[in-house]
Amino acid sequence: MTNQAKSYAHLYSDEANARKPSPLKTCIHYFNDPNIVFLGGGLPMSTYFPWQSISAVSPKAPFVNGIGAPCTSSEDSIEYTIPKNISDTKGKDVIALERCLQYGFSQGQTPFLDFVREHTKIVHQMGKYEDWDVLATTGNTGAWESTLRVFCNRGDTILAEAHSFSSSIAAAEAQGINTFPVPMDNEGIIPEKLSEILDNWTEGVPKPKLLYTIPTGQNPTGSSLSVERKVAIYELAKKHDFIIIEDEPYYFLQTGEYVPADKRAPVTKAASHKEFLDNLSTSFISLDTEGRVIRMDSFSKVLAPGTRLGWLVGAKSILNTYLKFHEMSIQAPAGFTQTLVSETLHQWGQDGYLDWLIGLRYEYTLKRDFCIDSLKKHLPLDLMCKSDPTKPVIAINPPNAGMFFIVTVEAAEHPEFETKFGKDTKKVEEHVYEQIIANGALMAPGMWFECHYDGETEKNGKSVDTQVFFRGTFAAVPLEKLDLGISRVGDALRKEFAS
Amino acid sequence: MTNQAKSYAHLYSDEANARKPSPLKTCIHYFNDPNIVFLGGGLPMSTYFPWQSISAVSPKAPFVNGIGAPCTSSEDSIEYTIPKNISDTKGKDVIALERCLQYGFSQGQTPFLDFVREHTKIVHQMGKYEDWDVLATTGNTGAWESTLRVFCNRGDTILAEAHSFSSSIAAAEAQGINTFPVPMDNEGIIPEKLSEILDNWTEGVPKPKLLYTIPTGQNPTGSSLSVERKVAIYELAKKHDFIIIEDEPYYFLQTGEYVPADKRAPVTKAASHKEFLDNLSTSFISLDTEGRVIRMDSFSKVLAPGTRLGWLVGAKSILNTYLKFHEMSIQAPAGFTQTLVSETLHQWGQDGYLDWLIGLRYEYTLKRDFCIDSLKKHLPLDLMCKSDPTKPVIAINPPNAGMFFIVTVEAAEHPEFETKFGKDTKKVEEHVYEQIIANGALMAPGMWFECHYDGETEKNGKSVDTQVFFRGTFAAVPLEKLDLGISRVGDALRKEFAS
Repeated sequence: MTNQAKSYAHLYSDEANARKPSPLKTCIHYFNDPNIVFLGGGLPMSTYFPWQSISAVSPKAPFVNGIGAPCTSSEDSIEYTIPKNISDTKGKDVIALERCLQYGFSQGQTPFLDFVREHTKIVHQMGKYEDWDVLATTGNTGAWESTLRVFCNRGDTILAEAHSFSSSIAAAEAQGINTFPVPMDNEGIIPEKLSEILDNWTEGVPKPKLLYTIPTGQNPTGSSLSVERKVAIYELAKKHDFIIIEDEPYYFLQTGEYVPADKRAPVTKAASHKEFLDNLSTSFISLDTEGRVIRMDSFSKVLAPGTRLGWLVGAKSILNTYLKFHEMSIQAPAGFTQTLVSETLHQWGQDGYLDWLIGLRYEYTLKRDFCIDSLKKHLPLDLMCKSDPTKPVIAINPPNAGMFFIVTVEAAEHPEFETKFGKDTKKVEEHVYEQIIANGALMAPGMWFECHYDGETEKNGKSVDTQVFFRGTFAAVPLEKLDLGISRVGDALRKEFAS
Repeated sequence: MTNQAKSYAHLYSDEANARKPSPLKTCIHYFNDPNIVFLGGGLPMSTYFPWQSISAVSPKAPFVNGIGAPCTSSEDSIEYTIPKNISDTKGKDVIALERCLQYGFSQGQTPFLDFVREHTKIVHQMGKYEDWDVLATTGNTGAWESTLRVFCNRGDTILAEAHSFSSSIAAAEAQGINTFPVPMDNEGIIPEKLSEILDNWTEGVPKPKLLYTIPTGQNPTGSSLSVERKVAIYELAKKHDFIIIEDEPYYFLQTGEYVPADKRAPVTKAASHKEFLDNLSTSFISLDTEGRVIRMDSFSKVLAPGTRLGWLVGAKSILNTYLKFHEMSIQAPAGFTQTLVSETLHQWGQDGYLDWLIGLRYEYTLKRDFCIDSLKKHLPLDLMCKSDPTKPVIAINPPNAGMFFIVTVEAAEHPEFETKFGKDTKKVEEHVYEQIIANGALMAPGMWFECHYDGETEKNGKSVDTQVFFRGTFAAVPLEKLDLGISRVGDALRKEFAS
């Protein structure tokens, strides 16, 4: 295997190109030179760091009573301590406080990077090109912000799923970057449509540098891209020379296909790590032969959002460009979060972490199933369109992954579509949103997640139909509350469309 | 007291002006509404956060054996535990893990903000205007990055000390922002020069929106601004309508005036908190009557750099503009660092934290004194200029604060200034830098810290003299090594200039 990542310097932003190496970095190799007294850097002495040690209690792998079981004894929990001094760490993988609380290591602490690099190898069978690496981030929100700064200038255009995570879209738009909506269906981006968009790109308008995609359990639609579509999209990236940014916070929440209650076997955990790994969807990063995919991985949905810790996977040369930006912005994720998360992972080991992920998938599968059962029970899914009796007014698309589901609604079927709403789909959407709230539940309307593009090629990407949708989550509420909420949504929809 | 901060919206960047409130925020008030089942947000349940509790051991206030003394027993140390569940926190000030590891609270966790708000009140006698507040940051590097994004467009100009922290200058320049150098002397910015610059600002070139200053123990020069100069600069800010950004990581390292060894009394700690507070220099934020100062405070030099935690002080309306950016970038400082730092501070209390700062100042004062004694012993400070026998070739300016000292050198006095270096001051600087390394020590040359301005008014701010300098720190090395390093610097300078 001798493939090397290509160079993508021509896609960098003006800002990234202007970042010079810090002059202080040019002398940093003298820092550990025993022949030099280093008076160059402003590092405080760790003698004055006011933490002697920190400790934590965590569940013990393989989490036989479930990942949410309380920690009651040494049977089901582990306790570990991180000392201040490197000389007091017994294992090489412990990040001592004098190390993680000091300046330096903007790329992330070595034991943390070692763990996620190995994990990435195991999960994505990395190796289609040689010079890949990982880089610590403060989570995917920050990683996306960095991505925009690394690649985009004001006025640039990026591609994104026509409905996408509102905060990611808003971050781009605030920077003056256009977000071009790529048409989707129930399975996510439609490669043929993307191909058409790019083939017919308006001459004179710079082509998109990036495709931003959430391939698994997409936010907000809950859709997941098949490997066939990913391959097709990757080929388009090569042909039209753009970078694919895969934002994958929900990757391990692959609950699989929904099977109706009366036909499904009891949910079980994976029989083995191999079975678990084999059933994970093929990622863009694992298809990548020339280093044009950047994967954003996060602990927010698998450990906790407040860790504010994640990592990028991609070509070393691109990650170095991020690193130069991080040195002047985040510097590095906080030392406490790096040492605690890293130590938890090292205590569990790679196998233990897979056990955790298997346990998590199990919990989400139960919730997803319960949620879809509840939607089928409470929503008027048998209500058919007056304009086309084969087409339901209200529909669901059971997700295979993630924490979100959507309820689609044919706005034109609202009895007052013409009279009260003047055929304005958006007005129906807003009205239904308010009626659901009035009925005691809240779902997020699809319009909150729209990409915008004001350029000439808008027509290529814009949906013109009258379908609207509402996003819900089954992750955040206990089951009985979920059922109550969904029944209220059902009542509201029935009141609006079936009366 | 009814002063209110003025509006500074006219100084915001295009990016800041384009940031819309997140639509998800418009419904967040329903989240805690008992009548609504909230299916809107993608929050994972804290049941699945894999930390049951975390604990830490810290020195115990009032740190009678010094802030660097080891923690050996309950006499000199405290141990505290942060539980997962809010219901298990006994005090209201503990940030439970289910809270700090969850999404939300981009402005910072309440108990953390409460502590630093109160601390800010105590230290800066806040109250010259009413609507000020604090905002959590990931430290001053990140806070400065945010500041640039909030206020500046590509092509804008900001004011900064002619020599300033290289990373701050580089961050601005990478964004296409000009950094206009404001002339300094041994006491920092010269207000009269700044006034001249602004009065003679080239017509048609937009005036600077910001002054970036490190008022206390300035990096790299070690200078500190007097209150008289601060008042004069603040008046200029009002007259010319710019914002003052005070970057104050070294504020509590106010070691006071250097007194030569033979004349000085033994260093003592402050007699009381009142004496300590009364002797702190008057900050820009405490002079501010109309909310045009943003203060960047950090724990990097007083607790530990790797906390990646700090806070801004300023007008609420401006901080809200930062907040909108933070929601799409850092989200919030990591939960572990907020809860651990906050808990340490609350365990100590406001008084205990002042004890810590008093202890820290004591340690730095000893080091500063030792360092200046050593410089006087080892440097050829009695070598006089051939061109002006009243002027020393090599000089020092003992700092009153911070961790840095500089050694200034008259480059034109180098025996080979004309013959070898062709009267190029920079070449002498580079040569001396290398000769110090060759002699076994390293100091950072002043040229690494220069502001650049390519516009027409460059002449106003640019020093044309032949003095160069080298920055050293007394913070990072133990005393005996510091003395060795300085003696090597002295030998190198003697070899170059006295032979």
